[in-house]
Amino acid sequence: MTRPVLNIGLIGTGFMGKTHVFGFASAPKVFDLPYELQLHTVADISDKAAYKAAKDFGFEHWTTNWRDLISNPEIDVIDITAPNALHKEMALAAIAAGKHVYCEKPLAPLAKDALEMADAAEAAGVKTQVGFNYLCNPMLRQAKAMIEAGALGEIRGYRGIHCEDYMADENGQYTFRHDPAGGGALADLGSHALATAEYLLGPITDVLGDCVTVIPSRPDGKGGHRDVTVDDVGRAFVRFANGAQGSIEGNWIATGRKMQHDFEVYGTKGALAFSQERFNELHFYSTEDPAGRRGFRRIEAGPDHDPYVRFCVAPGHQLGFNDLKAIEVAGFVHAIAGEYPEPFNFRAGLGIQKIVETIQSSSRKSAWEQVI
Amino acid sequence: MTRPVLNIGLIGTGFMGKTHVFGFASAPKVFDLPYELQLHTVADISDKAAYKAAKDFGFEHWTTNWRDLISNPEIDVIDITAPNALHKEMALAAIAAGKHVYCEKPLAPLAKDALEMADAAEAAGVKTQVGFNYLCNPMLRQAKAMIEAGALGEIRGYRGIHCEDYMADENGQYTFRHDPAGGGALADLGSHALATAEYLLGPITDVLGDCVTVIPSRPDGKGGHRDVTVDDVGRAFVRFANGAQGSIEGNWIATGRKMQHDFEVYGTKGALAFSQERFNELHFYSTEDPAGRRGFRRIEAGPDHDPYVRFCVAPGHQLGFNDLKAIEVAGFVHAIAGEYPEPFNFRAGLGIQKIVETIQSSSRKSAWEQVI
Amino acid sequence: MTRPVLNIGLIGTGFMGKTHVFGFASAPKVFDLPYELQLHTVADISDKAAYKAAKDFGFEHWTTNWRDLISNPEIDVIDITAPNALHKEMALAAIAAGKHVYCEKPLAPLAKDALEMADAAEAAGVKTQVGFNYLCNPMLRQAKAMIEAGALGEIRGYRGIHCEDYMADENGQYTFRHDPAGGGALADLGSHALATAEYLLGPITDVLGDCVTVIPSRPDGKGGHRDVTVDDVGRAFVRFANGAQGSIEGNWIATGRKMQHDFEVYGTKGALAFSQERFNELHFYSTEDPAGRRGFRRIEAGPDHDPYVRFCVAPGHQLGFNDLKAIEVAGFVHAIAGEYPEPFNFRAGLGIQKIVETIQSSSRKSAWEQVI
Amino acid sequence: MTRPVLNIGLIGTGFMGKTHVFGFASAPKVFDLPYELQLHTVADISDKAAYKAAKDFGFEHWTTNWRDLISNPEIDVIDITAPNALHKEMALAAIAAGKHVYCEKPLAPLAKDALEMADAAEAAGVKTQVGFNYLCNPMLRQAKAMIEAGALGEIRGYRGIHCEDYMADENGQYTFRHDPAGGGALADLGSHALATAEYLLGPITDVLGDCVTVIPSRPDGKGGHRDVTVDDVGRAFVRFANGAQGSIEGNWIATGRKMQHDFEVYGTKGALAFSQERFNELHFYSTEDPAGRRGFRRIEAGPDHDPYVRFCVAPGHQLGFNDLKAIEVAGFVHAIAGEYPEPFNFRAGLGIQKIVETIQSSSRKSAWEQVI
Repeated sequence: MTRPVLNIGLIGTGFMGKTHVFGFASAPKVFDLPYELQLHTVADISDKAAYKAAKDFGFEHWTTNWRDLISNPEIDVIDITAPNALHKEMALAAIAAGKHVYCEKPLAPLAKDALEMADAAEAAGVKTQVGFNYLCNPMLRQAKAMIEAGALGEIRGYRGIHCEDYMADENGQYTFRHDPAGGGALADLGSHALATAEYLLGPITDVLGDCVTVIPSRPDGKGGHRDVTVDDVGRAFVRFANGAQGSIEGNWIATGRKMQHDFEVYGTKGALAFSQERFNELHFYSTEDPAGRRGFRRIEAGPDHDPYVRFCVAPGHQLGFNDLKAIEVAGFVHAIAGEYPEPFNFRAGLGIQKIVETIQSSSRKSAWEQVI
Repeated sequence: MTRPVLNIGLIGTGFMGKTHVFGFASAPKVFDLPYELQLHTVADISDKAAYKAAKDFGFEHWTTNWRDLISNPEIDVIDITAPNALHKEMALAAIAAGKHVYCEKPLAPLAKDALEMADAAEAAGVKTQVGFNYLCNPMLRQAKAMIEAGALGEIRGYRGIHCEDYMADENGQYTFRHDPAGGGALADLGSHALATAEYLLGPITDVLGDCVTVIPSRPDGKGGHRDVTVDDVGRAFVRFANGAQGSIEGNWIATGRKMQHDFEVYGTKGALAFSQERFNELHFYSTEDPAGRRGFRRIEAGPDHDPYVRFCVAPGHQLGFNDLKAIEVAGFVHAIAGEYPEPFNFRAGLGIQKIVETIQSSSRKSAWEQVI
Repeated sequence: MTRPVLNIGLIGTGFMGKTHVFGFASAPKVFDLPYELQLHTVADISDKAAYKAAKDFGFEHWTTNWRDLISNPEIDVIDITAPNALHKEMALAAIAAGKHVYCEKPLAPLAKDALEMADAAEAAGVKTQVGFNYLCNPMLRQAKAMIEAGALGEIRGYRGIHCEDYMADENGQYTFRHDPAGGGALADLGSHALATAEYLLGPITDVLGDCVTVIPSRPDGKGGHRDVTVDDVGRAFVRFANGAQGSIEGNWIATGRKMQHDFEVYGTKGALAFSQERFNELHFYSTEDPAGRRGFRRIEAGPDHDPYVRFCVAPGHQLGFNDLKAIEVAGFVHAIAGEYPEPFNFRAGLGIQKIVETIQSSSRKSAWEQVI
Repeated sequence: MTRPVLNIGLIGTGFMGKTHVFGFASAPKVFDLPYELQLHTVADISDKAAYKAAKDFGFEHWTTNWRDLISNPEIDVIDITAPNALHKEMALAAIAAGKHVYCEKPLAPLAKDALEMADAAEAAGVKTQVGFNYLCNPMLRQAKAMIEAGALGEIRGYRGIHCEDYMADENGQYTFRHDPAGGGALADLGSHALATAEYLLGPITDVLGDCVTVIPSRPDGKGGHRDVTVDDVGRAFVRFANGAQGSIEGNWIATGRKMQHDFEVYGTKGALAFSQERFNELHFYSTEDPAGRRGFRRIEAGPDHDPYVRFCVAPGHQLGFNDLKAIEVAGFVHAIAGEYPEPFNFRAGLGIQKIVETIQSSSRKSAWEQVI
């Protein structure tokens, strides 16, 4: 019996576009997917980029008009890795055409846009996915399972950060990531910290924000400078619906840090500590270990941590970033087949956008705000 | 030529009292002090405790009346390790008697008390010292020197915490540390994080606080319960006079953590990361290292890091907590001789108290406040 | 212009077979390969296994007779992941048919077999590759480059281990890995430690071995027990042609260790430390760093470390085990096209076998032996 | 009731002499010792050194003739921190005078000397102590207790090293540590690795050595060079009486390492890993932890680890190198009072010397030798 084909149309061929292609290539080898994935058509803004991507990535067709993908009845899934500002238009068109949509984060510059997108997708009955790939880590799944199984007791507190330094150079040019609508370190990186926090502990209900612009202007690429108003560091004190409290930070000027997506969560009976810098490890402390032998134990990813075993039958061999993307792709494909719920759909992406905007608003007002 | 004698009177013989005695015993062996330190008299509340302390610690005399120490003209230094609430009365009496005063942190329950103490000491011309021992670490001195030498470039941000779990058990009894006047995790532990932050970066000028009571009542030791209103987690967003921004956390319910007095500070050219859990190490990142070879380098304490060499001529052998106290004692003794400024006097202790109270007030108001 | 096709025939579909398929799937997406890779035919011992592998992995054809692959003129590359004892027969047949051969390690049970294989391949002019995948790590390439550039000065010493615990359970069954011909921890895991040592420092010339059987018998799977004579721990003191000295250990009963493929190499001016447990990091110490600021610096894998950037343009995102296999596949494919030398051919695999056997012989004689 | 006085006579005032004085100063404050320790007389070779030591360290008397200490009936304990070559003569004289002897390691250049010393001490009925201070670490005591309690199951293997780089500079001058009689990295540093191994696992019975001179000559301090014949790296494969096997390394040219006194020991049920670089931690792996939650747990030193609590009542505050020396002093003083056995007496020191020499001999012969 052969699998039905799922035809993919990809928009955008940069960093994330390439990563998605890796995911499409690996996922069918690693997982027992309900569909055959077919790289149907790729779109980019120039002939050259689109042609090269088709050739390198193995797409059958290419185009410089992304609307060709939408209108092509053969294509089942529209995968959007184009700049943030275009997500909404593209996604709404795809949804209107009845296609499933896989969209890189952030879902849209503003929560109101994300809301429109989520509503449209649900009304159309298509499946959606937002690319919060760090959530696909087996060790995060393990952490969540341990929390839910009560290994930490009642959860009391959380501290989550996502710090990098890729914007630390003040001579780095102004980009779309500095755009007042949807830009900034909180939206870009803090959103990951928020997604992980909610993945593990459930909804964040209240925030008190502090968004700081440290580098007030950047070269505009034309010999001049352009003012920056978005945050280089965006953080918040937070409250969770489960009663826990904590803090979150997104930071793209943290010199020396490349992937400091870290958290520590503690409860009445234990704690977990994690760093994306060593994302194949999870550190667990239990008050139930015998006196004199307690300590954070470094759990290495292995076959006990689903779905690690699909990549490797031996422990300690480690997954890479692109493997997380393969897990993400697989989750979405299973959801399209109706086998599982969507792992992180537009509604979930909207949730993150809302918190980001509430933190930004709270920072402007210097007052606690409820996430609505 | 013999050294003049400095007679010490110690009040309190618990955890900190003993630690101070270790400092008095080690400091003269380690450092070339301008005085001979003499353990003159020790005071505690019971005959038994005072007698035992005198015998164990090597004091010549003991008393159950701390005022005996004040009135004894032979005694030069009053060392206060009694409960917090008594610091003020004892210190003011000692100052009035013209004695130098060494007082454990926190200096007093409230900043207004600390102010009175600092004013009195300065008016009397006596030397004072507050026990912020973590500042005595050679690696912190190294960090400060590197920051001042520009190794990090212009300082942009800071993240400092001091988390322990010694109050995590909700069945742990109500103590003076839960007292609404001066109690709480921020005052107890967050004060260390604040002291380190200011030691490295200079004054904190503005704060936005979040003080949370997680365990709302504790056993009163008489079969009932007593409400707790102080914070179990106290944190703040902060601004420094030098333009940097950051965050601070004090936390005594952080399950699994025993001494998580950590910081990360980053500038335009580099960063430092530190954990008191491994306090003989300092981690330094420099953007000036060659491409492909950059990374946080783990500097181990050694003779290059003053005053490590006085304890050991070989690197990597490591100092212990009590050694930090010996450094603290030595600093105070040199200050008494007028050789150096007081390392951390009552005025400095007052500064920390002020920030603590400003954070607490800010938390109640949910508004940024200036530290005055 | 389209790429010519390279048709792959895979023998064996277990742990390593699957890993190779991941490599074939990823390599063309990640690298700009001179060939189109086509998964032509897969062979396994049962209809069921072969059929399932074809379906799951995407091979066009399947067979239970591996000789079908050899005789099929369409197939260009024979990839052997069958049990060790079969490598020689399969490889020689493939070579005789003029096919390129990719063979999992160890190349053959005995060096004399490996020699025959290497000679045959060279005589036939086909390209070969042995699967020492850990060598494909960009951080090892970086380490080698630093050593060759003199960053450590003159190399003096080396300590390399590869310890796991997958044979630590004495109730684990007797397998082909316990076979006196070619089995044991040294051959299985120590061979990796040897390959890394020679990759970094060049040839090992002399060894003094110590091979120990710790678990003397194992269940035979039929209710009885079978004697084990191969080593559970195999180690050696070694001398390198460059004048350096050191030690090597292979160990499969190291309780708690899953992937302790570690080394430390030191020279007159610096040192490198590495652990496969965190294989996206390399730790570098330089005596040329300024006094007081020296320390092992943790270099995180990034675009500066070729070919990391092909997987990800941002640093710190990390490669996984299967990515190393993609690099291995790419290296072989480039070699087939004649663009680069074979990264680790049969002659190199033979070299490792020789050292393993010399260590085993040296252990039996308790005497230094020269590797010939 | 007052304690009887134990009068100390110290010979040698360098690195180790000072460390001993720290121990004498701290031990009585930290422990409840059966004696009052009195720093009676210090001896060094020059008036200046002896006088300065007396003044700085607090000795009542000083002399340039160490025999004055021996002949002084007031002195109870002779503490020898003079160069290695003098240990025997001094110790034998002290023993003959009926004094207890505390001697820095190595006990003597050669085992036959150490044997004479041990025999003499036992015949005279005096107490002795050799300064293997790393054994005094509470975490090593914890490790030993866990091993003895069966936490690791049956012990199978061991890997221990002690690597530093203080002799890595080939321009470093020839010293007594390079003396063919008793010198070399194995005797100097490897002896620590051996002592730790035997402390944890019991007697080493057989060795196969490899002692290498890497730097063949050193400046003689007079403008010329002097040949060096002792080992810069000395290592051995070892067998323990308990059936375990393993390896040992002493190395003083390990660039970048300051205190790499590390071990890993594994058994049928668990493992321990330790590094003196972070000696307040012990890492424990247990196969009895639940699947998916296993890992090396980082146990931080605290009150559960005797005698940590005597230094500090709170966990995680950490002991320093000099604290280990205080524990060593206390152990010896208790032994003098007959309360406990000598922690590490001359007979034990002899044992280490014997292994060192057997390794050296084994290395020359390239053959396994039994430790007799």
